[in-house]
Amino acid sequence: MGSDSDLPVMKEAVEVLEEFGIGNEIHVMSAHRTPESVVEYVKKCETEDYKVFICSAGMAAHLAGVVAAHTALPVIGVPMSKIAAGIDALFSTVQMPPGIPVATVAIDGAKNAGILAAQIIGSGDADVRAKVAAYKEKLGASVQAKDKKLQEKGFRKYLEEQDLI
Amino acid sequence: MGSDSDLPVMKEAVEVLEEFGIGNEIHVMSAHRTPESVVEYVKKCETEDYKVFICSAGMAAHLAGVVAAHTALPVIGVPMSKIAAGIDALFSTVQMPPGIPVATVAIDGAKNAGILAAQIIGSGDADVRAKVAAYKEKLGASVQAKDKKLQEKGFRKYLEEQDLI
Amino acid sequence: MGSDSDLPVMKEAVEVLEEFGIGNEIHVMSAHRTPESVVEYVKKCETEDYKVFICSAGMAAHLAGVVAAHTALPVIGVPMSKIAAGIDALFSTVQMPPGIPVATVAIDGAKNAGILAAQIIGSGDADVRAKVAAYKEKLGASVQAKDKKLQEKGFRKYLEEQDLI
Amino acid sequence: MGSDSDLPVMKEAVEVLEEFGIGNEIHVMSAHRTPESVVEYVKKCETEDYKVFICSAGMAAHLAGVVAAHTALPVIGVPMSKIAAGIDALFSTVQMPPGIPVATVAIDGAKNAGILAAQIIGSGDADVRAKVAAYKEKLGASVQAKDKKLQEKGFRKYLEEQDLI
Amino acid sequence: MGSDSDLPVMKEAVEVLEEFGIGNEIHVMSAHRTPESVVEYVKKCETEDYKVFICSAGMAAHLAGVVAAHTALPVIGVPMSKIAAGIDALFSTVQMPPGIPVATVAIDGAKNAGILAAQIIGSGDADVRAKVAAYKEKLGASVQAKDKKLQEKGFRKYLEEQDLI
Amino acid sequence: MGSDSDLPVMKEAVEVLEEFGIGNEIHVMSAHRTPESVVEYVKKCETEDYKVFICSAGMAAHLAGVVAAHTALPVIGVPMSKIAAGIDALFSTVQMPPGIPVATVAIDGAKNAGILAAQIIGSGDADVRAKVAAYKEKLGASVQAKDKKLQEKGFRKYLEEQDLI
Amino acid sequence: MGSDSDLPVMKEAVEVLEEFGIGNEIHVMSAHRTPESVVEYVKKCETEDYKVFICSAGMAAHLAGVVAAHTALPVIGVPMSKIAAGIDALFSTVQMPPGIPVATVAIDGAKNAGILAAQIIGSGDADVRAKVAAYKEKLGASVQAKDKKLQEKGFRKYLEEQDLI
Amino acid sequence: MGSDSDLPVMKEAVEVLEEFGIGNEIHVMSAHRTPESVVEYVKKCETEDYKVFICSAGMAAHLAGVVAAHTALPVIGVPMSKIAAGIDALFSTVQMPPGIPVATVAIDGAKNAGILAAQIIGSGDADVRAKVAAYKEKLGASVQAKDKKLQEKGFRKYLEEQDLI
Repeated sequence: MGSDSDLPVMKEAVEVLEEFGIGNEIHVMSAHRTPESVVEYVKKCETEDYKVFICSAGMAAHLAGVVAAHTALPVIGVPMSKIAAGIDALFSTVQMPPGIPVATVAIDGAKNAGILAAQIIGSGDADVRAKVAAYKEKLGASVQAKDKKLQEKGFRKYLEEQDLI
Repeated sequence: MGSDSDLPVMKEAVEVLEEFGIGNEIHVMSAHRTPESVVEYVKKCETEDYKVFICSAGMAAHLAGVVAAHTALPVIGVPMSKIAAGIDALFSTVQMPPGIPVATVAIDGAKNAGILAAQIIGSGDADVRAKVAAYKEKLGASVQAKDKKLQEKGFRKYLEEQDLI
Repeated sequence: MGSDSDLPVMKEAVEVLEEFGIGNEIHVMSAHRTPESVVEYVKKCETEDYKVFICSAGMAAHLAGVVAAHTALPVIGVPMSKIAAGIDALFSTVQMPPGIPVATVAIDGAKNAGILAAQIIGSGDADVRAKVAAYKEKLGASVQAKDKKLQEKGFRKYLEEQDLI
Repeated sequence: MGSDSDLPVMKEAVEVLEEFGIGNEIHVMSAHRTPESVVEYVKKCETEDYKVFICSAGMAAHLAGVVAAHTALPVIGVPMSKIAAGIDALFSTVQMPPGIPVATVAIDGAKNAGILAAQIIGSGDADVRAKVAAYKEKLGASVQAKDKKLQEKGFRKYLEEQDLI
Repeated sequence: MGSDSDLPVMKEAVEVLEEFGIGNEIHVMSAHRTPESVVEYVKKCETEDYKVFICSAGMAAHLAGVVAAHTALPVIGVPMSKIAAGIDALFSTVQMPPGIPVATVAIDGAKNAGILAAQIIGSGDADVRAKVAAYKEKLGASVQAKDKKLQEKGFRKYLEEQDLI
Repeated sequence: MGSDSDLPVMKEAVEVLEEFGIGNEIHVMSAHRTPESVVEYVKKCETEDYKVFICSAGMAAHLAGVVAAHTALPVIGVPMSKIAAGIDALFSTVQMPPGIPVATVAIDGAKNAGILAAQIIGSGDADVRAKVAAYKEKLGASVQAKDKKLQEKGFRKYLEEQDLI
Repeated sequence: MGSDSDLPVMKEAVEVLEEFGIGNEIHVMSAHRTPESVVEYVKKCETEDYKVFICSAGMAAHLAGVVAAHTALPVIGVPMSKIAAGIDALFSTVQMPPGIPVATVAIDGAKNAGILAAQIIGSGDADVRAKVAAYKEKLGASVQAKDKKLQEKGFRKYLEEQDLI
Repeated sequence: MGSDSDLPVMKEAVEVLEEFGIGNEIHVMSAHRTPESVVEYVKKCETEDYKVFICSAGMAAHLAGVVAAHTALPVIGVPMSKIAAGIDALFSTVQMPPGIPVATVAIDGAKNAGILAAQIIGSGDADVRAKVAAYKEKLGASVQAKDKKLQEKGFRKYLEEQDLI
């Protein structure tokens, strides 16, 4: 994370990884305020058995790009919405020049960053892939359960019970 | 590819994969015009040893999302610039809802899609990772060579010789 | 609806259809989380006497496009504002490629989606069309009543009574 | 059409309607320059057996909205890209206030406007609906043919033969 | 006004006109819901001694354009921010095609609409122009008074007293 | 004009004013490069019988605002499209703070600036107003003539003869 | 500052300058409401030993540009977010025409404006530069302290203690 | 420069610096492809008598931010328009987080970057400041010469002679 103010959003990435039983570390490091720590940490991870980076940053979001510049591992970028609905961070994260990609997910898309990391690991690990497949089935079942309830209750009751009106 | 008009851009992804010695297939399939073919193909890949999908589409670019809906493998999305500088395709590709990520690269970023695919495979395969690292070093060396030439020639000569004026 | 969180907005579409006496069903189905249910449901409707689909979705709003891919019936899309004021959903809904149109209404424009559905049915059904015409006259009369009141009270009183200050 | 400069794009709508065997008229009328002609024409159509309007306009694209204000028939709007990639026309067409919808298609989406008109008519006319379904199958077959050719030739030959490089 | 929900903003235009002693009327009329009333009213004003129109509308803001289509008098447009920060209404108001201008002020810029109306009348009426000049001097004096206070108090005290911290 | 590069567009404003027989002057003056000349010129005009200013500028288009700051006369602003389709100039021109309005027309809308100037003068001058009304009727007649020709020729012939295909 | 409503943001610039021990003045002056005061003040500063201007303004933010037009000293512009997330002010501040630059910082970026001013002065003053370097080291240390705490507590505890959940 | 493709634009910065007699170096270095060279070079400059950095980059333009992260000297950023009219590069350059400012100039604003560098140096060097002041006067004189010519020739002749029609 480029700032600890990203944590309330980024914790979803950690929780998803925990749900998949995937080991992870979470750090606050800034491409602009602690550039040396970022490079050191990335280099350390390269020599050990790390698989993928997830980087969050807002505004002129450079963290994912800076990490990507120092590693051959895949880097996932999460643009944070601090201002302008996060469009500035989206552009700063996704529009990487040829040679140094950042796998960008939706604005504030921490949960998807966690799932994408699992999919990347699952690409070479059948167990993890099976967990992702199960997770997606659970997601689908939850939507179907909602639809079933909607059919049974009708939309007026459904809204009342959800306190959504 | 959602359309064969993406091919002049998307061929760069294939060329990068060839450079890394990574097997690949390239298809024209449309989320809107041949939705069944898309689903069938994705399901087939799931049962065989495929590692990652790369999907390109322009405008309301749904292809990557539709593929992601049917697989637990990572899906890379390339927004194509048909109109509005590709901003419409960027939003349609990157803003996936929680549960179904698409790893989005830059608008028209086909080369980076190929490199990201290699990085994803390299995440679980040290040989491929070494190739990505070598590729990045070559990139850096090419920039350094350009700088060296610029210092030797001065910017006026450099521009003349590149026919960039 | 792509999510039951759309319901507080989308209920306006149902209420308009009820007002016109037009039969309708409302479902939660996701282009990304339950893609098979979507296709199955669309195919079922095609074989029965359904006239038009209304699909709501936010962010990378693919639902309307996916439905349109599987039917020859008209499909109305309602972009939902989850982030970036719904611009992402607007682009994802309206910018459909040649061959597969989605009839897009305003961001969060659920009421208009209901009226447009009635207009589409009314295009081939004089009774429904008459109801739409009557509805529009009522709308106009309500505006005229407001103007009349504004002339009688003056804008200061009018504001006070509306608690709009 | 709000201007005859829309004709090179809007002719695609006419051609699609001709392909479906659907009778049509094409006019140049301006919401701003000939507002009375627009209203007169719309009123005339209302009393005869017209089914749907297609309106194209660029910039502050008011034509579709003005037509919609005077009819209970469905109105399709085509935003034209004169400036700012047509974003101005898109907003002016799609963001209609509650009560008066415009069924908006993609920027410069004339062909889709024609198909949507056919779908609307097909909603109450099984023959037209069958023609739309056949059209969509033809579209899908054309994509499949392209993919078949791509598999046979490989992407390098394919590009050469299409003169797309 | 296109809607009485504009009134809390648009009352500033009336108040400015009152301050300048300029007679005015305020109406709710909709380009889409009561198009005939709009045209009738504009035509009536044309035959009497009206000088300028001020029109407010949000979303696909057509009111100013529709009024401009029916008069040779100057028309001021005020884009209202209902969604997307009013960018949709700004484009719908300002991007008028050649021949039919709308004098557009800032989003929600009701006060400026009133001042611009006074300036337009003042263009042919030295008394009104003098009042506008006096108004602007008062504005300047108020800024200078604030600066003087800021110098005397220092910014910390200034903030405290304004309850702006 | 803020720059003589605006002249190919801004000449349309002069031509319209000539057509209406309205005296005018055209100058190159820059809010940033010759600020004193701008202020001097505006003050001179204030003391003579000038009626309205038209100011064009691109990018951070300040000219209209600077002129408006020094006069009680109405100021028309024309945003010029130098970059980003003129959106930067549009915002810089239209978003004036309360107290100092600029009557903004469309991006590159020089002709409309001329017509609006005529309407403003016409607001206090029945002769000029009659000329504007006649001009608008001519505009309408030209659209009707085009429509008549389109009906007679059909759209294919019409396109051929216009060399628009 | 173009308005005293900027003060709650702009005080951060003053506080940073105080932290660096750099003398400063803060004024409310408007490019549109008190243009003469602005010019007078800038001219006075030019003849004394001032080093740099910081100008804040929202909407059509002209203040920085107007100041830059009257001085050869560097001018820093701070776009304020009054509407549209400050995009209008950003464009009005940064898009200056060739010849008259404004050194633009982030939207509402008052603190960075103060630091940039210190860097500009530090460019010619080793003492100030050393203070900026120390400030940046302190910033980095604060990020490292946060990361250390995060490693010790874990993200759940960290969130709780920060009351960020 | 982040890429030698920036050179045709960035040479204007060098030419301005030469005009002011200010020593300078121009390099190609990439925040993403040669991150170590960038850091090394910045550190070298810090220990010698360098005064200011100018950094150009397009897309996710990180170069200026990365340089700013490693120096206490002022850093000027030039967003380059590679795609989306350079809006992506503008956001990536200007929206720096608190603590690490980048002095951003207009999109492709290389000349202004050179002038701003001179202003920054001139802030502590009366000779350079005098040169900047002279440069600005020359600019103003050139605008006045153009206006004089326009008055003498009239706009039609002026356009003809400039071949601008």
